[in-house]
Amino acid sequence: MKADLRGGTVHEVVMAGPSRPSDRASIRRTNLGLVLRLLRDSGPRSRARIASDTGLPRPTITNLIAELVELGLVAEGESERDGSVGRPSQAVEIDGRTICGVGLEINVDYLAVLALTLRGDVAFERRIAVDVRTAGPEAVLDRAAALIREAGAAVEATGARVVGVALAAPGNVDLGTGRVAFASNIGWRDVAAVDGLRRRLGRDAPALRLENDAKLGAIAEYLVASASDIHDLIYITGETGVGGGIISGGQLMRGARGFAGEIGHMPLDPGGRPCACGRVGCWETMVGLGTLLRHAADAGDPVHDPSLDVESRLADLRRRADGGDPRTLDALTRIADDLALGVALLVDVLNPRAVVLGGYFAVFADYLLPRVRDGVARRVIAADSGGCEVLPSTLGFTAPARGGAYLALDAVYQDPSGTA
Amino acid sequence: MKADLRGGTVHEVVMAGPSRPSDRASIRRTNLGLVLRLLRDSGPRSRARIASDTGLPRPTITNLIAELVELGLVAEGESERDGSVGRPSQAVEIDGRTICGVGLEINVDYLAVLALTLRGDVAFERRIAVDVRTAGPEAVLDRAAALIREAGAAVEATGARVVGVALAAPGNVDLGTGRVAFASNIGWRDVAAVDGLRRRLGRDAPALRLENDAKLGAIAEYLVASASDIHDLIYITGETGVGGGIISGGQLMRGARGFAGEIGHMPLDPGGRPCACGRVGCWETMVGLGTLLRHAADAGDPVHDPSLDVESRLADLRRRADGGDPRTLDALTRIADDLALGVALLVDVLNPRAVVLGGYFAVFADYLLPRVRDGVARRVIAADSGGCEVLPSTLGFTAPARGGAYLALDAVYQDPSGTA
Repeated sequence: MKADLRGGTVHEVVMAGPSRPSDRASIRRTNLGLVLRLLRDSGPRSRARIASDTGLPRPTITNLIAELVELGLVAEGESERDGSVGRPSQAVEIDGRTICGVGLEINVDYLAVLALTLRGDVAFERRIAVDVRTAGPEAVLDRAAALIREAGAAVEATGARVVGVALAAPGNVDLGTGRVAFASNIGWRDVAAVDGLRRRLGRDAPALRLENDAKLGAIAEYLVASASDIHDLIYITGETGVGGGIISGGQLMRGARGFAGEIGHMPLDPGGRPCACGRVGCWETMVGLGTLLRHAADAGDPVHDPSLDVESRLADLRRRADGGDPRTLDALTRIADDLALGVALLVDVLNPRAVVLGGYFAVFADYLLPRVRDGVARRVIAADSGGCEVLPSTLGFTAPARGGAYLALDAVYQDPSGTA
Repeated sequence: MKADLRGGTVHEVVMAGPSRPSDRASIRRTNLGLVLRLLRDSGPRSRARIASDTGLPRPTITNLIAELVELGLVAEGESERDGSVGRPSQAVEIDGRTICGVGLEINVDYLAVLALTLRGDVAFERRIAVDVRTAGPEAVLDRAAALIREAGAAVEATGARVVGVALAAPGNVDLGTGRVAFASNIGWRDVAAVDGLRRRLGRDAPALRLENDAKLGAIAEYLVASASDIHDLIYITGETGVGGGIISGGQLMRGARGFAGEIGHMPLDPGGRPCACGRVGCWETMVGLGTLLRHAADAGDPVHDPSLDVESRLADLRRRADGGDPRTLDALTRIADDLALGVALLVDVLNPRAVVLGGYFAVFADYLLPRVRDGVARRVIAADSGGCEVLPSTLGFTAPARGGAYLALDAVYQDPSGTA
């Protein structure tokens, strides 16, 4: 529930008709996007139903669909009975198998790439272990560019092409300049990531953009959760760093300058450990992946080795937990309690319908969640946790790269004719 | 900046035209509200300019204005030159001197009532000292009803009438049932506030609604701040309890069930004092008004006396600070540091353009703000505090009641023809 103080509810503004002049071409572009997003969000349907869903005249819809088919974005699908008698009408659906978006995530100890078709099918996926902090920005951008090229080649081998790439970085980013302003866990400060990639990929590279990893993860999770009618959620990354992406009323909350969701540095342990950011007792020092590993294993233990893939190290740790290893179980209990502390705070402040725990939190969901849920229920001021569920991510470590691929495809949904 | 994941930006949806069928009468109602809100938000203007601002045809605007004039909501104003040659056109403006909204705030040690005309002029204002916790809900609702009657009589004496009353309560409220679910600082749990008032005011009472005090304060502050193009802000009440109201992209953030903004119970002092909510070390125990008073004066000191008006007690304390009293100054320093801690956390999470400090924080703004701003700048992860300014409320203790009066008038802005 939201109240728009500027002009009534969105619905009312919509009903009130256009609020500024617009030319025929831009209306057509907008309507193409409207129809394409409807098919994405609500599934295949007949032209008649699209007309009634959008309020646009039937002949307009017929023309728009013809253009979307020509662009290779929409295809004739199954027949559909609209619940009426008479012959079934032909449904149309998103096609777009020839168009892909690519997301590339830079994290503390891995790079991950994922390509999605316009329908949302995964066309390519890969993750490689990289000690990003030690390697430094130039070497990391080399490897990132190689991964993007590899994804592009794989996509092209299927007869498709990449329309855009979004880079997910674990820190403050400046969307306008494409620079990573500050990412404490990888030691990057003011790195021109987009320019660096463009230089490496050459002039024919697809459109490149940059966003914070947790925000991209939140977008990916929202596209899952919205199917359950959840439109207010917080996605929390569970990596070395802990970041947040906030969806409020179906919208990504970016804040005044795009920095919203910096939840890893909440000062919840005043007498606690130093954080990579230079402060003391940040929430990240209590629940970040490094802390789980430190609680669970001594320094020489292979679970600490950044040259090994993070999922295989966590699988190792899971085996210990499943085997009843007391130190591992105790470590998970401590993490659960500290996780509940910060999640409850965020639930008090934001009253979401769901908190989605990503990264390693999702890997250990069966160990962590019962205790986290109890702690949240006990701490949140509103009864029944204000209606909030704590859920494990179903996307795991792929959420930010997947959200990046969605974002890269977003340009197509905003202006389908721009892809021709 | 926001990304609407459900259907592109709001602007694009607007351009795409109506998305569901609507009848002529409801379109007319919607357009009346659209024009009235335009005049509220953007000031007096000519019919021609209203037509171009709204995108509605000129003859439609002429009809709509005629209806709004007939309803007593709009009046012919000054002549206006649109920058074009020829004779100046007649501007129209909000009139509505005959229509008032009333806000009534219940706080820990006072009740406050404020009546606003549709133009935003204060028609009546009063605050009385009440020890709300000791008095109990029934006695408090008696006094609240008497204040509402007093405001109504004063408004009627000017030839106007009250179209609605909004009650501001310091805690979790249930808008649907009009019940105060939980308000720890006044000891209310599941109090049927709206029903109780309706019983006292009789069947002819204007429409009654209930909202959280900090959310109403945020609405009032946003109507001030939006003039400076600030559309993302957090309003923080500075009373015995500390609550928050969040405006994001010009919208009040309510969260999934209307509980967003519960910032007083962030666990920032793990080894700290017990809170009225039953937890330990909540932010409220560090920066609430009771804590300032405890830091500044011993138990027998008159600044602790709840039978005295809160502003006169604070004026007393201000005189001590202005006189250089070391204990008072030291108390303010401690409050400033603890305030910076929580404000920085909220700035990290929400990245607002402004944090507006209300209640007693505003009374001591010149003592508190320099230190709070320094602390916030030092702690916030994003450079330059993410572009956030920390500002004192200019509305002081009246913000929640004023926001309530705005909310009560909102029904008129949503459906102007409903007031006839």
